[in-house]
Amino acid sequence: MDEFMQVAIDEAKKGLEEGGIPIGSVLVKEGKIIGRGHNRRVQQGDPLAHAEIDCIRNAGRIGKYQGTTIYSTLMPCYLCAGAIVQFGIKKVIAGESKTFDGAAEFMKEHGVEVIDLDIDECKELMEKFIHEKPDIWYEDIGK
Amino acid sequence: MDEFMQVAIDEAKKGLEEGGIPIGSVLVKEGKIIGRGHNRRVQQGDPLAHAEIDCIRNAGRIGKYQGTTIYSTLMPCYLCAGAIVQFGIKKVIAGESKTFDGAAEFMKEHGVEVIDLDIDECKELMEKFIHEKPDIWYEDIGK
Repeated sequence: MDEFMQVAIDEAKKGLEEGGIPIGSVLVKEGKIIGRGHNRRVQQGDPLAHAEIDCIRNAGRIGKYQGTTIYSTLMPCYLCAGAIVQFGIKKVIAGESKTFDGAAEFMKEHGVEVIDLDIDECKELMEKFIHEKPDIWYEDIGK
Repeated sequence: MDEFMQVAIDEAKKGLEEGGIPIGSVLVKEGKIIGRGHNRRVQQGDPLAHAEIDCIRNAGRIGKYQGTTIYSTLMPCYLCAGAIVQFGIKKVIAGESKTFDGAAEFMKEHGVEVIDLDIDECKELMEKFIHEKPDIWYEDIGK
């Protein structure tokens, strides 16, 4: 397992323990974690607090995103993909895209390298959550 | 002047008074304002706090965005357009797109109606800010 994806999974589990949606994200630059976060829709009552948004926010005003890679346990949706494209994050590593296929094509069209690791643990976290709390999940993706 | 765009402009001015980027936004449903906000990158040290993001966040967990219209004094960027597409906001009314052309085509491709009111006051607010604080503006759009 990629060490940074492991941290993203740890973030997802932290979110689950808090009663939230188990999606975690890590922002990496030059081999170092510069931001980490998880979905906090439930915890903060904030519909925009997707994992990648929380992660980028926690990295603070870094200015240039050149050379950064963002990890997410789930393929980014349009909101998070929009942030990635706008800020010029050029590499995305997703834990899986089976439970939600996200906006991979949109990111690729904008020159972002998108890698899907298809990790069982990431899928199981989401499958269990979607099964137990479908309303919260579909609210999160605007469905 | 559209009454809701006037509120968005008031939000933009509020942001300017706080030392921030003068972009304001309003979320409207059935003729009523359900959220309002402005860019708070500088004020909150949050690179994701674009006006539309702040506005949607302030509306809270409304669940369905059906029938909502979002106003912004400036054409939404990919981050904000991504939120609009993901959450199914079907109408965007922008104050202008001259100082920044945003992601209008992307939103239209996803079935969003995009109207550009091309308002002088919105352009003047941005032109003055970009002239005085170009670094902050280009940081905001990841350039």
